[in-house]
Amino acid sequence: MSLPPPARVGDPLESVDTPALVIDLEVLDRNIAAMQDIADARGVALRPHAKSHKSADIARRQMACGAVGICCQKISEAELMATGGVDDILVTNQIVGARKIGRLSRLARHVRLGVCVDDTDNLAEIAAAARHSGAELDIYVEVEVGMGRCGVAPEKAGALCRAAAAEEGVRFAGLQAYNGRAQHIRDHRERGAAIARAGEAVRVVLADLEQAGLGGVRVTGAGTGSFEFEAGSGLWHELQAGSYIFMDADYARNLGPEGTPETTFGHSLFVLAGVLSTAPSGRVVVDAGLKALAVDSGLPLVAGPEGAAYLGASDEHGVVDPGGAALRPGDHVRLIPGHCDPTVNLHDWIVGARDGFVTDIWPVTARGAVF
Amino acid sequence: MSLPPPARVGDPLESVDTPALVIDLEVLDRNIAAMQDIADARGVALRPHAKSHKSADIARRQMACGAVGICCQKISEAELMATGGVDDILVTNQIVGARKIGRLSRLARHVRLGVCVDDTDNLAEIAAAARHSGAELDIYVEVEVGMGRCGVAPEKAGALCRAAAAEEGVRFAGLQAYNGRAQHIRDHRERGAAIARAGEAVRVVLADLEQAGLGGVRVTGAGTGSFEFEAGSGLWHELQAGSYIFMDADYARNLGPEGTPETTFGHSLFVLAGVLSTAPSGRVVVDAGLKALAVDSGLPLVAGPEGAAYLGASDEHGVVDPGGAALRPGDHVRLIPGHCDPTVNLHDWIVGARDGFVTDIWPVTARGAVF
Repeated sequence: MSLPPPARVGDPLESVDTPALVIDLEVLDRNIAAMQDIADARGVALRPHAKSHKSADIARRQMACGAVGICCQKISEAELMATGGVDDILVTNQIVGARKIGRLSRLARHVRLGVCVDDTDNLAEIAAAARHSGAELDIYVEVEVGMGRCGVAPEKAGALCRAAAAEEGVRFAGLQAYNGRAQHIRDHRERGAAIARAGEAVRVVLADLEQAGLGGVRVTGAGTGSFEFEAGSGLWHELQAGSYIFMDADYARNLGPEGTPETTFGHSLFVLAGVLSTAPSGRVVVDAGLKALAVDSGLPLVAGPEGAAYLGASDEHGVVDPGGAALRPGDHVRLIPGHCDPTVNLHDWIVGARDGFVTDIWPVTARGAVF
Repeated sequence: MSLPPPARVGDPLESVDTPALVIDLEVLDRNIAAMQDIADARGVALRPHAKSHKSADIARRQMACGAVGICCQKISEAELMATGGVDDILVTNQIVGARKIGRLSRLARHVRLGVCVDDTDNLAEIAAAARHSGAELDIYVEVEVGMGRCGVAPEKAGALCRAAAAEEGVRFAGLQAYNGRAQHIRDHRERGAAIARAGEAVRVVLADLEQAGLGGVRVTGAGTGSFEFEAGSGLWHELQAGSYIFMDADYARNLGPEGTPETTFGHSLFVLAGVLSTAPSGRVVVDAGLKALAVDSGLPLVAGPEGAAYLGASDEHGVVDPGGAALRPGDHVRLIPGHCDPTVNLHDWIVGARDGFVTDIWPVTARGAVF
């Protein structure tokens, strides 16, 4: 059952029902343009990751601004994005099992679709399904470049690439080289060093491919924490950053080359919480807890009222120190989530606002698209 | 957009698509019966909290077994439970603002409905809306009994109770006295002491009410960690435990009177994850991360294969040490969530299984019912 949106277009922000996911569209558009400008200036393509926003409306906005397509993490996410009008999708993940592979190959009939592989049997299954469906799929071999998650070791990647190139029904398109662990290294120089090591791993595979007559393939990867290094490396052709459009509290803790926080991208995503109760202690209780906010990367920061602090979350409640503000039941507290991706996934609707008024209501198209 | 269920009735568990929320119905039914037996033996009513399961099917199952009704945390949750056939609901939370209070008073036309208050203005607004709608609402005054969240201080509760009793359109029904903080105190004696202190707070209010000619009201509260103490106190009339039906990894760390883990309730809730990738390190990567599992109360435990351990979660991935099991892509890993309530809220469907086969598919009726 779908729940109704917490606001209507034209409402002042003060009347939005809480808790609600609210986007400052001015900052969102500025972030989208800033990343596209950087990619254009470096001569690399931008394929933003849609796992951050899960919104077909935002994906189409990114593509209208120059993005070549989007990334998804799950086949269900890709299906919903395709239904929402996105026609070029790379699934930056392994798709395993006959049921999901069948869906993947059927979706490839309708949109340009790529998928990552790191296993010979999985590659063979995908190729067989693609031949059966008659739709060509782009195959990216995922290389382990320092993240310690999926991917084949660089020295073994060449063999899998050759297997992909030899399979009928699929097109060997390139390498997936993403180091997620590097994204949250605070120090600029250390973050750059982690991507330099990832680049070395990519070089090993590219040399192998060159020898095998498979040169000139696409290398795709990078995230909001590290994209400047991949973009400047001369190795990556495509950036997959996602969180830059929202900038959660965690990413904002990354430091730039001067040792000060990066300010290229602004916070555009907020959870609007409402005060439920004023406690005898002077603290207030708001209506946004673990079911409205992800806390895996730390508690949310308070964007307003100034001086207030979010102290703790239980399932449906948050305890806030008002910091001098005279908060009463029904008043709003504006929170910057610690981690935007799993926070967005908790909500059905995005409330888009400009100058204090609601201008857009978007569904979170792929909310809960977990398989 | 609703996603299709990850299985069909009759499927063997091995073929369930992952990640999926799976319930062992035998254990679920045993847990439901065990808690009802305890409540019956102690002569107290059971009103299980539906914030744990968010499922109208499970709520009706609990009521068929003797529960007097259910608890909800949000007005949207209560609406969806009512639509799902539940006719007696206590909202154990403050409902704030004209829009939500309007919904509350309208819902009271269709089901027996109670709500908690801890503020005079909020009480007056609710009573006005109830008079307007013509439906009587039960009012429970929430008393702060040691949790440090919502509720009025015991010495101030009497005045609010008298105000509730004086309002037309609502019925002053009793006291909400819940100490959520006590639920997760590991030591049995300390947990009992925290509830004994909560009982002292309740006594203060009851004495005040007796004097005001408002004796004989209902006292409701208690959770899975502490219900035995409230049930045995002679003060509480109604238990609100919710998590006992599932038993997450966190609640299973509570100790009984002998200093050993409590075993009255078994783990009935699992997240079935699928292996995506076998890493060069020997670890495997599964398809259940932060968007399929809540990690606020610790990482999930592995129920099978034996000896495996879940080491870390990112948005869509989990890293698992297989502990000797030969796991290949597509194999299943059965996880016991660290915290069941926010985990259930991430899923659209519950797969009910018995003897290794899917027997029921239930929607998570109030999934995402956050406002």
